[in-house]
Parts: sequence; C-alpha cells; structure tokens
Amino acid sequence: MILVNGALGGSIAADDRGLSYGDGLFETVLLVNDRAPLWSRHMARLAEGCARLLLPAPDVEQLARETAQAGAGLARVVVRITLTRGAGPRGYAMPDPARTTRIVAASPAPMTPPDWYYSGVRVRLCALRLGQQPRLAGIKHLNRLEQVLARAEWNAADIAEGILCDAGARVIGATAANLFAVIGGRLLTPALDRCGVAGVARAEVLAHRPDCAVRDLTMTELMQADEVFLTNSVRGILPVTALDDRRWPIGPVARALQAHWRALGLEE
Amino acid sequence: MILVNGALGGSIAADDRGLSYGDGLFETVLLVNDRAPLWSRHMARLAEGCARLLLPAPDVEQLARETAQAGAGLARVVVRITLTRGAGPRGYAMPDPARTTRIVAASPAPMTPPDWYYSGVRVRLCALRLGQQPRLAGIKHLNRLEQVLARAEWNAADIAEGILCDAGARVIGATAANLFAVIGGRLLTPALDRCGVAGVARAEVLAHRPDCAVRDLTMTELMQADEVFLTNSVRGILPVTALDDRRWPIGPVARALQAHWRALGLEE
Repeated sequence: MILVNGALGGSIAADDRGLSYGDGLFETVLLVNDRAPLWSRHMARLAEGCARLLLPAPDVEQLARETAQAGAGLARVVVRITLTRGAGPRGYAMPDPARTTRIVAASPAPMTPPDWYYSGVRVRLCALRLGQQPRLAGIKHLNRLEQVLARAEWNAADIAEGILCDAGARVIGATAANLFAVIGGRLLTPALDRCGVAGVARAEVLAHRPDCAVRDLTMTELMQADEVFLTNSVRGILPVTALDDRRWPIGPVARALQAHWRALGLEE
Repeated sequence: MILVNGALGGSIAADDRGLSYGDGLFETVLLVNDRAPLWSRHMARLAEGCARLLLPAPDVEQLARETAQAGAGLARVVVRITLTRGAGPRGYAMPDPARTTRIVAASPAPMTPPDWYYSGVRVRLCALRLGQQPRLAGIKHLNRLEQVLARAEWNAADIAEGILCDAGARVIGATAANLFAVIGGRLLTPALDRCGVAGVARAEVLAHRPDCAVRDLTMTELMQADEVFLTNSVRGILPVTALDDRRWPIGPVARALQAHWRALGLEE
C-alpha cells in the first residue's frame, strides 16, 4: 500500500523536487505486529533533517496514522516515509511556501538470513570514498548516489555489506548500516559530522550504551579491533566476522545488544 | 507537455529510484525556434553520466524526437530530460536489468533580464562549500541538495548567482552556472574533477577558445582577475560586474563570447 499525501496512490508529479533534485528526506521504519519500537528515533531524525533542509517540521501524528494504515495486517513490514519539497518550477530556488509531498509506502520486511545474526557476516572494503559535506552529514536525505555506486561494487551473495571510508581514510560506516567497534575494551562508533547517515539503530545503541565513544576511527584502528558489528534499524545487530582477509570472533558486546534488540521486540 | 517513457503524462511511480535515491541524470535543453544548437554537447554529457552511473546508454534519436515533440510550437522553450534507473525494490543495489525511466518535460524559457547581458550581473559568495566526490564530479546527476541549500542563502532579486568554492577554498562555479576568469591576459575556468557540474555552455566556450586553461582557481586569484563571467546553457554568457564588494568592468572576452552565442542562434 502506498499513500501519497494521505490518499491511496502510487504515483507522484513528474516535477516533484524529490525527483528533480533529490530535495527531501526519508525514513524506513520496521513494524513488527503493528509496533514500531524505534518510532520516536525515526521522527527525531526526520525533524532534524527538516530543520537542516529548511523544510516544514513533519506532522508526527499524521505520519503515525498513515504508517499504521499502510503497514496494517502484516507481521513484519517496512514502511518507507518520504518527505519532499513538493512540486515546483524549474530551478534550485526553494518554492515559498513549499507544499511538501508525503509518501508512505509499505513493503514486506526483507528476509535477512538468520545465519547473519548467529554466525556473523562477511563484509568488504568499498573503493568509493564518501565525500565530506557537513551540511548534509548525519541526516537521511534523498541524495544517495554514493551509496548506490558503493553497493554496485560487489554482487556476491555472501558479502553482506561494504565498509565506507571518507577521503581521509576514516571509517564512516557501511552502505546501509552504521559500524561499531570494541577497541582496547572500549565501545566506539565513528563521528558523523562530515559524512555518513546517523542511523536510528545507532541512536538506540548510543542511548543503551552511554559509555560508547563517538569519534574518528581509522582503518588501521578498525583492523586492531577486538569486535566489530553493524547496526541497521531493519536488520538489527549484525556481528562482523570477516572484512576481506581479517577475521573476528563474535564478541560479547554484539551478543548483548542482540539481546537488547529482542527485548525491544525488534527480532522475531 | 510532459512525456514519460514516450507517453503523454505528468506522473511517475512513487518507487522510482530517481525519487528514492536521486539515482539518475538530467539535462535542460534550450530550444530556440525548434533548434537546440548545443544538443550534441547535452547528449555527450548525458552519455558520460550514464557510463559513470552504470546506466544503459541513452537512445539519442528517441530523445531528439521526444524533445522536439515536447517543445514544439514555442519560440523559446526549455526541455528538461531526466533519466532515472527506474522503479525497483527498496535498497541501494541496482536492479538488473534496469528499466530506466525517461521524462521529457517542456516549460517556457525563463525571462532573463536583458540588462544581465548588457550591464552584467551582481553575484555573492556562498557560505556552503561543495563536497569533493570525484566519482560524481562533472556529470549532471539528480543529487542536487548542495545547490538547493546554496541557492537558499539569498533572496535579493538583484543578486543573479552565488559563487561556490570547495572545502579547499578553490572556486568551482556558481549554483547553476560555470565560471570563467581572465587573469594576466589568460582565459581560464576551474577544473571540475573533484566537484561541480561541467556545463554544456562551458564545453562550447572551451571548444571555441581552445587556449582556455582548465585548472584550479583560488578565491585570491579570482579577486585579481581582469574579467569574470558566468556561462549557462539556458541563460548564455553573463558578465560579472560585482562579487560582494569587488567590482569589474565588462571585458572583451565576455563580449566576444556573447557575439558567438548570437551567431549560434542562442540569443534572441
């Protein structure tokens, strides 16, 4: 089911700025038995994105109603919420006032191989380096060509993700997940003030583990980590057991967070 | 008139990757009395963009027919051609094969104040610095949030454009135009291998003036230029007479290129 500005539909105007310029934001919300445990974190990021892109603040009650409507009746469903600056004349100047377009679209949750949770995942290092743009860092905007190109670097089904660095060889995350590492007994995750997307699963981990450090992380440090795992709001906590030739055992921090995820009702 | 995959229409699927991820390219082609003098340059850039984004090469004959159809009957019309990777399931991985979406949309050419040609334009320096991403530099892709945010920095009708630098304080161009400068008697334009869009008007100037240097340009150098002008395939050659407090006279190079533009049939 797809709702466009609240009405059942499946199409948008060809001159929508979401299409013309990627001028908008999105969230992908996992609903399990009609509950979205990370909802408030999705809405917090969306509000932050709207403020950064000079879009009107989202109507959270309305989005909650439409998300429930679109996702109703499925045990595990992903609802993608897209907000754009709406249709407008040609040109980068923002229409004033903007009439935003709101798309709420449900699709079945992806089948993540159960093995990924239990036995961990294999990842690779992407050749593409993320560009640095502090004005867009952290928010989940619609300009995602870097992720599309990075994801195109591999096809092998046994590679779950690609690790992305910035031009300064700092580790930022994966194409569709955030990264955490335990180094010298300390949990840390990369700072995302220059590039990357601040995931809602990452926010949940940071709230649950207030001792987690947020700082720059080099590739050299990552290779020396005792434990590495990825977080994604739809897929949960994925222990990393191999990055190219480097191998890791699954560590206690990832296992404890998987238990937290189950307690939240996010795993089956 | 809007053609979507050749059919009259005005809407696209809500799950088109052009909207979901800005996964596509565009061209804005000026037609004057049904002629598009820069057509081959638009098609060359589009083909280059398709190769860079791993999209199928465009069908140039088909685009030419649809552009003529959409723009027919108007003396001066801008036809925007948008190519996206089409509809697809959620996720950054490219659908294989991709069924691209082709949007050809005509709108009246913007009214550029004639004074801008004759007396030059006033521009400002944008605070936003362009991020560096060699994989996307030069091509006209749909990820344009940087330009949208930069264009939102001013509202004054007497400011024609905003100059954009990269994080290294190198001048790259304007929000919707390329920049040229004459320094010590030499014509030059910024290299666009790290960021920026390689405009078709810029390509035309480079072909017409093979002596033009393409290299990095600092803000300090720009301030010492004898002559500065902007190029845009729809607006033509715009002499810059003021950048914040710096003033320039209109120089002979801009005037000669304006004459070249008239000879091409691109000015009224």
